[in-house]
Amino acid sequence: MQTLHCFYRLYIRDPNEVLSFDVYVCVVQKGYQETDSVISTVTTKVKGFAYTNTSDMDPRMWDVADYVIPPQGDSSFFILTNLVVTPEQTQSHCPELPNPSTVCKDDCDCIEGYNDPRRNGIRTGLCENFSTTVKTCEVFSWCPLEVDTRLPKKALLAAAENFTVLIKNSITYPKFNFHGRNILPHVNSSYLAHCEFNRLTDPDCPIFRLKRIISEAEADFQEMAVKGGILGILIDWSCDLDWWAGKCLPKYSFRRLDSQNQDNDVAPGYNFRFAKFYKRADGVEERTLIKAYGIRFEVIVFGTAGKFGIVPAIVNLGAALSFLSLVCKKKKYYIKSKSGDAQNLTVANIFIRCPLLQTGLC
Amino acid sequence: MQTLHCFYRLYIRDPNEVLSFDVYVCVVQKGYQETDSVISTVTTKVKGFAYTNTSDMDPRMWDVADYVIPPQGDSSFFILTNLVVTPEQTQSHCPELPNPSTVCKDDCDCIEGYNDPRRNGIRTGLCENFSTTVKTCEVFSWCPLEVDTRLPKKALLAAAENFTVLIKNSITYPKFNFHGRNILPHVNSSYLAHCEFNRLTDPDCPIFRLKRIISEAEADFQEMAVKGGILGILIDWSCDLDWWAGKCLPKYSFRRLDSQNQDNDVAPGYNFRFAKFYKRADGVEERTLIKAYGIRFEVIVFGTAGKFGIVPAIVNLGAALSFLSLVCKKKKYYIKSKSGDAQNLTVANIFIRCPLLQTGLC
Amino acid sequence: MQTLHCFYRLYIRDPNEVLSFDVYVCVVQKGYQETDSVISTVTTKVKGFAYTNTSDMDPRMWDVADYVIPPQGDSSFFILTNLVVTPEQTQSHCPELPNPSTVCKDDCDCIEGYNDPRRNGIRTGLCENFSTTVKTCEVFSWCPLEVDTRLPKKALLAAAENFTVLIKNSITYPKFNFHGRNILPHVNSSYLAHCEFNRLTDPDCPIFRLKRIISEAEADFQEMAVKGGILGILIDWSCDLDWWAGKCLPKYSFRRLDSQNQDNDVAPGYNFRFAKFYKRADGVEERTLIKAYGIRFEVIVFGTAGKFGIVPAIVNLGAALSFLSLVCKKKKYYIKSKSGDAQNLTVANIFIRCPLLQTGLC
Repeated sequence: MQTLHCFYRLYIRDPNEVLSFDVYVCVVQKGYQETDSVISTVTTKVKGFAYTNTSDMDPRMWDVADYVIPPQGDSSFFILTNLVVTPEQTQSHCPELPNPSTVCKDDCDCIEGYNDPRRNGIRTGLCENFSTTVKTCEVFSWCPLEVDTRLPKKALLAAAENFTVLIKNSITYPKFNFHGRNILPHVNSSYLAHCEFNRLTDPDCPIFRLKRIISEAEADFQEMAVKGGILGILIDWSCDLDWWAGKCLPKYSFRRLDSQNQDNDVAPGYNFRFAKFYKRADGVEERTLIKAYGIRFEVIVFGTAGKFGIVPAIVNLGAALSFLSLVCKKKKYYIKSKSGDAQNLTVANIFIRCPLLQTGLC
Repeated sequence: MQTLHCFYRLYIRDPNEVLSFDVYVCVVQKGYQETDSVISTVTTKVKGFAYTNTSDMDPRMWDVADYVIPPQGDSSFFILTNLVVTPEQTQSHCPELPNPSTVCKDDCDCIEGYNDPRRNGIRTGLCENFSTTVKTCEVFSWCPLEVDTRLPKKALLAAAENFTVLIKNSITYPKFNFHGRNILPHVNSSYLAHCEFNRLTDPDCPIFRLKRIISEAEADFQEMAVKGGILGILIDWSCDLDWWAGKCLPKYSFRRLDSQNQDNDVAPGYNFRFAKFYKRADGVEERTLIKAYGIRFEVIVFGTAGKFGIVPAIVNLGAALSFLSLVCKKKKYYIKSKSGDAQNLTVANIFIRCPLLQTGLC
Repeated sequence: MQTLHCFYRLYIRDPNEVLSFDVYVCVVQKGYQETDSVISTVTTKVKGFAYTNTSDMDPRMWDVADYVIPPQGDSSFFILTNLVVTPEQTQSHCPELPNPSTVCKDDCDCIEGYNDPRRNGIRTGLCENFSTTVKTCEVFSWCPLEVDTRLPKKALLAAAENFTVLIKNSITYPKFNFHGRNILPHVNSSYLAHCEFNRLTDPDCPIFRLKRIISEAEADFQEMAVKGGILGILIDWSCDLDWWAGKCLPKYSFRRLDSQNQDNDVAPGYNFRFAKFYKRADGVEERTLIKAYGIRFEVIVFGTAGKFGIVPAIVNLGAALSFLSLVCKKKKYYIKSKSGDAQNLTVANIFIRCPLLQTGLC
């Protein structure tokens, strides 16, 4: 485990002004302790409900237990925004969805036991009416089959844009025995009950309105909600622990993580299928298949902390000074000729000499 | 991908005893191979059952399929310890929970369609009896509403403290072609059937009793079980592979990861809501809403492995010697004047010279 | 956050041919930006179905909503390949599975309330007929108890070897503002509809047939399917962004992650238990317990990107040259005596001098 830490900046200025540049003296710190990387834990809790009343479905109230999948509230969570529901599926027989390879005239077109992995089931050998005009091969499958072309053009749970999420994040830099959390010391319960994150007015509130964070990621909630997508909530805990540790605060940023390349938008969005299983009174297993479209939020915590250490400081300063001694040899010789003890370097006066280097005298 | 590795320690001792310090010569190793970081996989399996018999609920046996959520047994798992159950919810109407904003005198106080995101549903416009003494606005929601103030003061599954978890962890340092697992070579099936981790008597047993690991993290199981929490199980695979690889063994530690700051304990604990969905004989969808409190365990595997490499060794040794050459220039000049071939440095005698440096002669 | 990057190789050749080695000048790059590590997101989508018709079970079609657990399609997913089903469990009483500690002659052998954590429930105090020949103590538990010794020797979902998985992976190196995805620019929807990954003929297709990737990991699908296992799908995005960024392409590899040590195969495979909960018409909760064996796939994305930076280049080059100056001091002195301005080093002619060093003149 290691961290990189720049603690000193040297200005090297050639008196002839041919060259002028900075050297950052950087320290690769070796951990003496076992654990050095950030240990982070995230919990999330979504609030809000949505009411839907469309022609396809009965009026319905959606709460967290309906639209947050998985429900565990860890660093990755999904909010359902649009869906194709196929209720009352059972293991039975039904005609395939029409397609050049499934349309048939009579049973001879349908080979029993044939199994096309791009279709939906095992053929029974019969050719059945799919509709009044089309006949297709019958299959054994979860029937009726899902028709996922009926995806609503406007997201069903459009109201989800006003849901909020409380993110609790505790971190540790074990090497420095530093503990931090994104609920800052001055945040109390009554503030937390009403605040909402706003980069300008409320940058410390750990409650985020979905619409806002998606717009900060330069995306549009309603557009993302239709076909789904992935949004990163990035929490940066990079800190310089040499200074007052109270300055070590989380910085939030938001980034759309799924590709939205306009030129080459193959396989866009984010969806997955899951089912709720029921058992009918007659003992038959029945399921409601849901093709769920929505936004997956991923809380990504990162950062490294640096703190001054004498050993790496010496090693790095030495390497940088060695380089300077090559660059500035001519000047140093000049210094030497002027003051005979210039070579009389000890660690102490290397540090003393630094301001000298900074003044450009080399 | 890189690892930091300290392979040599130089003593620099000023003969005048003004200065005396160590320089660790550290190697930043460049991987020639594609993969250098730890590749780790964790599986977990919880064992145990609990019997509950409270006034709220029928007597019940809880086994892993009831209390381990999600059930997949990967590096993060949750053990249910306390819960608020709201059975037989359906999409219907019911009076809101009493609250200054929901209490009403008559229907005029309840605007139809009003939707307060901090409450539980959409108002129907009626004012109904919540109890014999209080009337509240009726809402359309999953009814009856959850009353989560009835959380048991003593964790329902207090017996979970005696559950055990078997953690299987396989790791690879691909660059060094090193494979390790936490089930050590000398561990056989019969030992595994009966052992239990104990830092002193059984440090190699990968079966952990929940109570013990929580007490090692300086927390109290019963206190954590009531409102929930998060516990980190840290496995450190940091290794020096220059030595016999058999020394590369996992080191376990335990740490409570959620904040338990006494001063500022806003939003404590860990809980989430999920539902089990049923379909009634009449086709109506019904659910049992569960507000689950419990302990989320997170197995965090970390570590870096180091191994000697000649190229970085030379680069680093060079940088360190350059530093020494500045520090010790005076002494070296002295050496030079004494033995004319002191400057006659080759890589070979840089290594030979190291003991010299160690003796403080610079 | 940092990356290691080797940008220059110096040949040092001793004219006397005693020594001859390369020095790679490596740069530890410091990020000026907040985020430097790979930010990666993965979605996965499995396709395929399986038909089973065994004596134990009714004929059944298995699709993604049945065998992919959890269903969310993130970087870790599980495909069910074998299972032990225990249907119609209720909270009730039944005799324990026969075992030296559970077999009884009469009720006196069964202490009421006794609770052995290695067995399955709480004893009721009765001794009942487990079969016509064996009597065991009765317990209160989810009854009937699971008999998991009936695991099929041939995986039930053997057909899963022909399932395919589409992996979508988007990555960002924020410091370099580099975005990449594994669906390459030349891949269009029609190609994606039919292609299948093949290291030789189709290395860019992000659709993987399970059988192929398991055989690339030197494992056997059918053998893994019986008792389960874990397979890593590694995507390496290590890149040198100094060159045309179009060269930054993902490299796939596959590795079995669970141990398959022949000598010490304790606790092999991968399985977990979960339940589907039903409510009977009479209101009694019933569950189907499933002990699921299968293959957990873990998509592991890693890599670091390097890009030339002038500041670290100078620091590192300086350190390396300092080293050379010690090694080559004799030769340099020789150069100096020949050309008086050899010490007249500026940054400019350090770079000029490099080819000199390369020629072995030091």
